[in-house]
Parts: sequence; structure tokens; C-alpha cells
Amino acid sequence: MIDLRSDTVTKPSKAMRKAAYEAEVGDDVYGEDATVNKLEETAAEILGKESALFVTSGTQGNQIAALTHCKPGDEVILEANAHIFLYEAAAFSALAGVQSNPIQGTRGAMNPKDVETTIRKDDIHFPDTTLICLENTHNKAGGAIVPLENMREIYSIANRNNIPVHLDGARLFNASVASGISVRTYAKYTDTVQFCLSKGLGAPVGSIIAGDRQFIAKAKKWRKRLGGGLRQAGIIAGPGLVALTENVERLVEDHDFAKKLANGLANIDKLQVENKVETNIILVNVKNTGYSVNQFLEELKSRGILAGAYGTNSIRFVTNYDVTKEDIEKTLVRIQEIVS
Amino acid sequence: MIDLRSDTVTKPSKAMRKAAYEAEVGDDVYGEDATVNKLEETAAEILGKESALFVTSGTQGNQIAALTHCKPGDEVILEANAHIFLYEAAAFSALAGVQSNPIQGTRGAMNPKDVETTIRKDDIHFPDTTLICLENTHNKAGGAIVPLENMREIYSIANRNNIPVHLDGARLFNASVASGISVRTYAKYTDTVQFCLSKGLGAPVGSIIAGDRQFIAKAKKWRKRLGGGLRQAGIIAGPGLVALTENVERLVEDHDFAKKLANGLANIDKLQVENKVETNIILVNVKNTGYSVNQFLEELKSRGILAGAYGTNSIRFVTNYDVTKEDIEKTLVRIQEIVS
Amino acid sequence: MIDLRSDTVTKPSKAMRKAAYEAEVGDDVYGEDATVNKLEETAAEILGKESALFVTSGTQGNQIAALTHCKPGDEVILEANAHIFLYEAAAFSALAGVQSNPIQGTRGAMNPKDVETTIRKDDIHFPDTTLICLENTHNKAGGAIVPLENMREIYSIANRNNIPVHLDGARLFNASVASGISVRTYAKYTDTVQFCLSKGLGAPVGSIIAGDRQFIAKAKKWRKRLGGGLRQAGIIAGPGLVALTENVERLVEDHDFAKKLANGLANIDKLQVENKVETNIILVNVKNTGYSVNQFLEELKSRGILAGAYGTNSIRFVTNYDVTKEDIEKTLVRIQEIVS
Amino acid sequence: MIDLRSDTVTKPSKAMRKAAYEAEVGDDVYGEDATVNKLEETAAEILGKESALFVTSGTQGNQIAALTHCKPGDEVILEANAHIFLYEAAAFSALAGVQSNPIQGTRGAMNPKDVETTIRKDDIHFPDTTLICLENTHNKAGGAIVPLENMREIYSIANRNNIPVHLDGARLFNASVASGISVRTYAKYTDTVQFCLSKGLGAPVGSIIAGDRQFIAKAKKWRKRLGGGLRQAGIIAGPGLVALTENVERLVEDHDFAKKLANGLANIDKLQVENKVETNIILVNVKNTGYSVNQFLEELKSRGILAGAYGTNSIRFVTNYDVTKEDIEKTLVRIQEIVS
Repeated sequence: MIDLRSDTVTKPSKAMRKAAYEAEVGDDVYGEDATVNKLEETAAEILGKESALFVTSGTQGNQIAALTHCKPGDEVILEANAHIFLYEAAAFSALAGVQSNPIQGTRGAMNPKDVETTIRKDDIHFPDTTLICLENTHNKAGGAIVPLENMREIYSIANRNNIPVHLDGARLFNASVASGISVRTYAKYTDTVQFCLSKGLGAPVGSIIAGDRQFIAKAKKWRKRLGGGLRQAGIIAGPGLVALTENVERLVEDHDFAKKLANGLANIDKLQVENKVETNIILVNVKNTGYSVNQFLEELKSRGILAGAYGTNSIRFVTNYDVTKEDIEKTLVRIQEIVS
Repeated sequence: MIDLRSDTVTKPSKAMRKAAYEAEVGDDVYGEDATVNKLEETAAEILGKESALFVTSGTQGNQIAALTHCKPGDEVILEANAHIFLYEAAAFSALAGVQSNPIQGTRGAMNPKDVETTIRKDDIHFPDTTLICLENTHNKAGGAIVPLENMREIYSIANRNNIPVHLDGARLFNASVASGISVRTYAKYTDTVQFCLSKGLGAPVGSIIAGDRQFIAKAKKWRKRLGGGLRQAGIIAGPGLVALTENVERLVEDHDFAKKLANGLANIDKLQVENKVETNIILVNVKNTGYSVNQFLEELKSRGILAGAYGTNSIRFVTNYDVTKEDIEKTLVRIQEIVS
Repeated sequence: MIDLRSDTVTKPSKAMRKAAYEAEVGDDVYGEDATVNKLEETAAEILGKESALFVTSGTQGNQIAALTHCKPGDEVILEANAHIFLYEAAAFSALAGVQSNPIQGTRGAMNPKDVETTIRKDDIHFPDTTLICLENTHNKAGGAIVPLENMREIYSIANRNNIPVHLDGARLFNASVASGISVRTYAKYTDTVQFCLSKGLGAPVGSIIAGDRQFIAKAKKWRKRLGGGLRQAGIIAGPGLVALTENVERLVEDHDFAKKLANGLANIDKLQVENKVETNIILVNVKNTGYSVNQFLEELKSRGILAGAYGTNSIRFVTNYDVTKEDIEKTLVRIQEIVS
Repeated sequence: MIDLRSDTVTKPSKAMRKAAYEAEVGDDVYGEDATVNKLEETAAEILGKESALFVTSGTQGNQIAALTHCKPGDEVILEANAHIFLYEAAAFSALAGVQSNPIQGTRGAMNPKDVETTIRKDDIHFPDTTLICLENTHNKAGGAIVPLENMREIYSIANRNNIPVHLDGARLFNASVASGISVRTYAKYTDTVQFCLSKGLGAPVGSIIAGDRQFIAKAKKWRKRLGGGLRQAGIIAGPGLVALTENVERLVEDHDFAKKLANGLANIDKLQVENKVETNIILVNVKNTGYSVNQFLEELKSRGILAGAYGTNSIRFVTNYDVTKEDIEKTLVRIQEIVS
């Protein structure tokens, strides 16, 4: 099977398995897991933040951000198609008791003016705006890169209003590799950053949340409440460290393959590529093929290819660690068969 | 002072004060306040609902709806400028732990198709959609009447998806009087309704939340938790009963005066009436007058007239129980003076 | 009917009704209700606190204390039979997300040493202790007066640990009148105080929460979220002001009647008065009468007397504003009849 | 270092590391991780429950139980020294919004009569009791085994009141091995069970929560909200499966060593063993040695032994996978040195 459903499906590499096998471990609740400590220090260093915390998923990292930055009854500004708003089962409201106020962006980027006018004034009827969340790359916008300048402007507005900025950087390394801008530079325009070790970077489990020391100290207790305080976590932090130190540059390949796939699809009659493919996600409208999305996915599956539904008329392909150049070529051939 | 800031500012009438003075009371926590019981029965009857509960404010009624209909981590669909979303300090998320998913409507009415597509499918990443909130008349849309047909369509979609519909009918009687459609007819397309005794109806304090018996039984415990379980509440339910039984028809007057004011304002150079005035709210853009909103409000105040800011360029006038025909005429004269 | 179920059942006096009738009112959401303002200033003055807020019930006042003093995941120390823990439907946890840690006291008073050892140390496994709640008089302990010295010691421990103390003073005036210690002196050993206008003081509706200015400013927004932001609240604040300024001294009478009733009951064979009657509550064990609690209450009711169940073997009588000396005498005669 | 602080500190064995290295994995969010599936099926089978879910910690399992069984404003009955009440940072209240009502037990076992009287009646002032939590073995009571008969009686009361029973079985296998009663038999008197793979069983990370199919389906969404939805979790489920299938019987050794250590300590002058050592925990009072708890711990540390503080006068030793017979002997010698 060629699995193009998501970059979350990648299997850990031999090097990662070896890292699990050999990991120096300890009880991380006591801060004694050397591998976790090394991963956290490495991640903090790469991001240019004081401190970092290993968490079990991107969702957990984002939730901890809201729980730590906000009080119940506060409001968070985010983009209308943000993962946090659409795909985290309303956990921001369920756990942190905050209201998300979504702003419709362009290719995942909110207009800074919209952000500014959405910040609440001081009034008994209004929640306090206590967090602005960005997402880069932006999943629902097809892996779009939110421009650094956009982040800088929003961060500047946030600073003037004493509001922290949290970056859901689940795929921040994709943005970095594609744009040539370091994650550290992106992170400069944020107060806290979450990124996933388990998507394009290929680790089996885990994410990082980073910020200043005071934030991370508070975040740790929230991680504990959520059940994310682990014991000999080096077993998964080890593969995570491999992901972070060895797998960043190879994201270039995912992007190349994605473009290759997109170009091929654009040449197939009746298919429309819907997004500007900047990183590893391709959205394809199959409406004119005569197949419904589910039928199209079934046709693909019967030919050894997995992809995902994206709304009512489109299909999402995500290139990843386990996908080769040959897989892309084969995929194009098979799709041509289906459409013809 | 001519107070056109809101219809919440009305002073209780002599009849209401007399009702407070003479109210037959008891301990309502034990269900023994005859006046509260009468008010609740009257309200349920008027709305065509099984049961009703006296609450201390519209916000309390709306919060109880979310707390009773939903579980934390659920999602509520509402219009993007709903009072619940904008003006209740994010209490839906703070108290009930639900995420509000706002849909941009037209004159306060959500497109039923948008409602339908916003209902969440069954997926581990999605919250359950467990409530749809309507608002009629719609405050932020300038007292707009949400058409009965719109409510009927949304209710039908809701029913097909087993999702209850709650109506924030803070000003439902304004909609009813202006449209000629009974509140009972509006209420038919809802599961629960909240309306205010204290706005156009002129009562000093209080609102009603109505629904089926089971809902109200659960709602009572949430009212208790919020601190809305009162003792000899007949003192305020008495005036509320006057408001409900004697003050509905006179809303016609508020609407007439609002139209009169709107027409007058439309004839004043440099002013634009922004909304179609269907009930008792008028939104006027003052940008071309050379005054800022705050300056304009100051000019009005110095001439004995109070109004409210509405966004960056506009002013809101709300006619109410305490405003006479002469007040409207005087207001127009004074505004003409300011603008000239 | 002679109603001895609670002091919450009192009917408003003529003076209170008159105060409702004549109250100078305004929209309290805008801070313009003169009667509410006067009540709040008077209450703050009496308690020696910077500021006070009118709320609709004791429960609402207590909830606002937790919501304002604490964050979710914090811990509150309180007495094991505190009203907050037993009778507020777990609202501290439901609304403020705090865990109550109950300490078994003696006659309602926690041992200061127990309080001290219950305060949590700094540890990733522990919640932060961010509130200590006292109750005076203590309802479940039979209207017991918590000694001033006990409050002073606990307050001193709290101060050393930077933890605020909230007093649920629903019946604080009973404690004050019975002990001769001013409410202001009691309030000295607290950060925030809630007291009820609607119990012994006889007002139909309402309570006060008082503290410093910063606390009250935050408390107002929580009151709004709970739906306790009222409009022309002077209608109930007026009677509340009468209660606060005219009805304090007469609590002496409630206490005298309670002692008279207790003494009489103690002389009736087969009955045991269980509490030391310091204020207006009498707990009587009826086990030896051959009647169950419910049967005994029925017997009383059929003779024109209402009382309440208190656990499996006992009955609670509460003297109040509407109970006369003759009522007490009649009650004793009727009980003698039942027991004989 | 001989590490007797806890059984959480154990390092994964070679077999576990191998299991990580070789684990067949997939994306567990899609239910495609074969190793996780096998672990969950194995655990469900062993417990005699319909379904089981892999979670990242015992705290996460317990939290999910409250979130799934209860609504905010409900009440949970548990033992006063339960891990959930003392050591999970008030997360039951922070996340699930429930109030914990602690009952003082005897050696960790609540008196069934106390449980019965603590269940709330139907009353507007009362929360609904919707969960009873047990803990077996009971950590704070020194690894005490809660008798099966006690569990059976409480379960019977719970059933009569339609209240589910959740077992915090973090160390359930210790109870089972020591008592000779199967975990399946213990689990019979519960609705849901959580047990840890990472304590005595020695796995690096993870716990199991088990119950009926409907419970687990709902639990999955709460796990996702908490950030416990992992990807290629086989990497940790693999070692967990080794722990569950190969390490149960060897707990006998931990218990033997614990008794050996306890007997030795009992023979050392000035030391008192405070608990009946039934499993792997020993509590020793060091008050009469002249050392404070912290000094005693320092003395131990300087001699290569780690233990934990337990209250103001006592020290806790926990035998575990990494502790040998020689370690126990050496520990006794060293302690004798310190005390002498």
C-alpha cells in the first residue's frame, strides 16, 4: 500500500528503533530521563526558547498552551480553519474553558488588521483576549506557509496588547525547509511553539512545546493533570531525537514529491489541484470525474493507494517519509486509469 | 435625560411597583412563591411550552440552556454576531465548556444550508454538535426580525440531526409585535426559549427560560448552582408578570417611534441609517459628520440625550418604555443642531 | 402555619415592601442604580471592606469567591460540613474547577493545626491551595458560632502562606448579635465575606460579597457570567437595605426564642436537643419517640407547624422574623401532645 | 544506587527494549497499530472486560474515567487518601468538574455503610453521586490490599443506586499476586478498571483503562482531547505487552523482598514499621532516630540508597523490578549503620 492519507502514518526508521532500544532512561516525573532531557534541551536550542517540554501529541501541546496562558472565560483568536478549532474536539473550551474566536484567513494567514479589531476592549460584557494562535504550515489550507512578515505583524500587535502568541507548528519544519527560514526565526515571533516529532519528521510518538522557563514550569503541572507525565519516556524521546536531528533536511524530498504529484494531477483531465502546493499536502477536486469522493477513495484503495477525504468534492494527498519517487509515479498512473 | 442607550434602562412603572408591594410571596427554593409560580405558568402558556423557569437575566437563561442541553467538549452553532457569542463574556465556554462555532448570517439569520454543513459528523477529531442557538430579534443586526421560515427550516434540519434549538428571545416580543406572528408560533420552532421581562417589556429584573418538563427540572439545578435560586422572588416576579401581561402591545409604540426617529435621521445630511428599522433599534453612521463616535455621544449628552457606541463609526439608539413622542422630536432637533 | 423550617422563609415586612415600591432605581449593569449603590456602600462600610457587590444569593456569592480567588485545578480547604461542600450541588468544582478538601471540625470550627497541615506543599502532584473557606455561624453544626480566636489563628496561618480566606457568613449577623462581636471585627480575619440579606435579616432576595476593590472588580465579571448582572435591582436592594439597617438587632429575639424552644424541648421526655443553641437553630433527636423523622414532621404539620429533617433521626427548627413568642409556646404544647 | 523510592523508577528490561525495537506499528489514531490492538485485547481478556484502551499514565486513565462516567457538578465518592484525591493535582475537579467526597477508610478500604450514607439523595441542593472510586492496592495505606469482600459489598451498593464503580488499580497486579485472587475476579466488582504497566510490571510507559464497549468508545474521544491519541504507539505498547504477559508472577519477589526488608527494619532499634506489609511498600517511622526525615534520606543517599519521604516522620521504601535480594541486605546493613 502507498499511504498518502497523512504524514502521521510513517513507520519509525531503523535508526529510530535503535534509539528506542538503546535509550538511556530514568523516571521523567522526577526529571531523570537523560534522553528526554536531551530532546527537550535540543528542541529549546533549535527554537531559541528558554525551555521545552516533551508531550505525547500536538493536541496535548496546544491544550497545555491554552491551559497555561489563559483563564476560563477568556477568548483566543485563531484562524477559522485552524486545527485547534476544527480537529481537537473542542478541547480548548472543554479543558481550558476558553472561547475560540475564529477569523477567516487567506491561505491560513489571518489579516493582522482583523486580529487587531478582534481583540476585545475592556468591558463587563467581553471576555479578555489572552491568546492568539497561529498555525504554520496551515493544514486545512493545504500545507500553506504563513509568511514570516504576517507572523511578525501579528506578533507586534499582540505585544502592544500584552497578549501572548502561540504557534501550532505541528508542521513548522515543513514551513522552514520550504521557505529557507529557520524555525528559530519563525519562533521569534511567538511566545510559545508546539511542533510534532511524529509527522513529517517521522517519529512514532510525540511533540514539543517550548517557551520561557516560567511558562514551562506551569505547563508541566498541566501536562501531569492531562496524564502526560510519563516514566521512562526516553523510549519514545530517543526516536524523537533522531527525528529532530536527522530528518529535517529530508522534508525537501516530501515537498519535491508533492510538487511532482501535483503537476502530474494537474495534467490529468477532470482533476483540479485546489491549493498552491508549497509543502507536502495536495488537495484535488474530483467532482468532474463522475466519482464521489468516497468512490474515488475506494478506486484508489483497490489499486493499492490510500488517500483522505477533504470536504465534499476533494481528496487530500500527503507525501511523507515512507513515500518514494516510484510511489508517486505509480500513483499518477493509477489515477489516470481511474479517471479514464 | 432622554435615555436611548438601551431598552434595559427603563424604570418600573407604578403598576409594577404596586405589584412588588403587594406580591404574594413564599420561598421559591421550595416552590412556594405563588407569584413566581403564576409568572412561570403564564410564560409557559404564552410560549406553548410545558414548563418555564424564572431566571435573573437573559444571560442566565442562555447559560442554563447550554449547561442543560450540552456536555463539555460539545459544539454550539450560532450566528457570528449573536449576543451569546459577543456579549456574554465567553460564559458558554467558561461554564458549560462548549465551543461556539459562529456562522455569519444575513440580518441575523443564518443560512440553513450553512447550519447543515456546520453540523459535525461522527469523528474522533470532532466535537458533537449538541445545540443550535438562534436570536430573534437580533440585537447586533439592529433589531432585525429573523423570518419564521428561516427558523422553521433550521428547526427541521436540527430535528433531523437530533439537535435541540435554543432561542435567545431576549426581544422575542418585539419580533412578535412587529411581525404579527405570535411568540407561540415562533416558539414552535425551538426546543427552549429565553425571553427578557426587563427590556422592552419594562420589568426591573428577570427573564424566562422555557422548555419541556424534563429540561426545566434539570435547568433548576443549574440555576441553583449559578446562584439564581431565590427566596421571596415574587417581589420581582410580580413586576415581571405586569410586564408580560400588560406591556406587550405597547411595543408597537417603541417601533413607531424608532421608525419616526430613523426617518428623521435619514433626512439629516451626513448621517446614514445603517439598518432596516423593523423594531426598536436604530444604527446611525456618523462618520461624515466630522465627529468621532465618542465626540458625537458627548454632544448628545450635553443636550440631554444618551445613546450608545456601536463599532467605530456608528451610534445605536433604542426606543423604549420611557421614551415619548416628544422625546423623539426633541432628539431629532438636537441631532440636527449637532450636525449643522 | 408556624414555619420553623428555615430563616429563609420569612416574608418581607411592610417596610421592605415600601422600600421596593419607592426605590430609586437605574440600570445596575451601568452602575446607575442608586439603591444598589447605597446598599453596597453600606455593606462595605459595616464590614470594613473597601468594596461590596450585591448578588442574588449566598450560593452566588460563594461561587464568585472561588471563581475570583482560584484557578481550575486549585484546592480549597473548608470544614467537612460546610454549606459550600454539602449544599451547593458541587458548584465549586463544576464552575471554578477547584477541589474542595474538607476537614472535620468541632462545632463548625476547623482546628488551625489541621488547616496548616492540609495546605499543599509545592509538588507536581499537588494542587495549589488557594482558598480557605470559613462558615460563621455554621449551619450544619446547629448555628454554632465559630470563635473569633479560631478565625484569627486560621487567618494568620493563611497570611503566612499567602492564601486568601473567604467567610461564608450567610448568618454572620447571628454570630455577631449573639457574641457581641461586631461583624467588622469578624471580617478583619478574612479577605472576602459573603452574608445573606434574606435569612435572619428577613429580606426577600439577595446577599452581599465584599472584599478589596480589585477583587470586587473581577467579581463583577464573574457575576455577569453567572447571570447575576441585574437591571433595576433597586427593587430588591431597597428591601435589602431595610434588612441590613433595621433588622440586625432583632436577631436577639430569634436567639431568645430558640433558647426558649430548646429549653422546652429538653424538658420533654424522649427528646434530646443535640446542639448547644447559640443562635437560631435547634436540632432535636426524635428517635426515642417511636416516630420516624418523616412521621414526626407529618404530625407537626397536621398541628400547624413546619420543621425540617436533619439526618436520619433528627429534626431542625429555625426561629425567624415571622415567628412570635406565642408560636414558640404553641409549638411546645403541640410537640408535647405528639410525644405523649 | 539502590532505588527504593518507587516502583515507577524501574528501567525497561532487555525483552522490553527488544519489543520496542521489533514492534509492528501503525497509526493508532486510525486503530491500525497491531501491537496496541494486541495489548488492548490482551488486557481486556485478562480483566474480563469487553474492551480496553491504552493510555499514557494511570492519571490519564483515572481522569478519563471521571470525564466519561460523570457530568460537571456531579460527586465522586473515594477514600480520603486515594491517589486520585491526593496526588493528581485536583484534576478530577479541573477537567471533569466533579467534586470528590472523601471517606476515611481503614487500610485503604472504605466502610460500605459509609459509602451508602454518602450517596446523595435527590435534592436541588445536592450533586448527583455518579461514581465511586476504589484503589487496590492502596498506595497511601502502604500497599494495602482492599479485601475482595469489601469491593463486592461496595459494588452491590453501587449497583442498587445505579452508580458505576471505577477501580484505580495502578497496582492491581500486586493485590492479585499477593492475595491469590485473579485480577479478573477483582474486576468483576467494578465497571471500569485502570492499571499501570509502568509500576511493578516494569514497562517504561503506559496504563490500561478497561470497561464495556460503549464506555471505551466515549473514553477514546476524551483521550484524544487530553492529547493521549498517539500514532505508532506500538513502540511503547510492545514493552507494555511484555510487562503484562511476562512480569506478573515476578511480583511475588517484590513482595518477598518487601517483607524481608520490613522484618529487618522491625528488628532495628528506634525504627517502627508502620504498615502491615502485604505487597511492595514499607512505611517506616524514623522519629526516634534523632534524624529528621530529610536528614535520614540524605544519610541513605550518601550510602547509595534512595527512598522517599512519607509525611513528617516516616520514610517509604518500595521494592521493584530493579531491586535484588542483595540490595535488600545491603540496605538493612546501611540503615543499621545510620541508626547506630
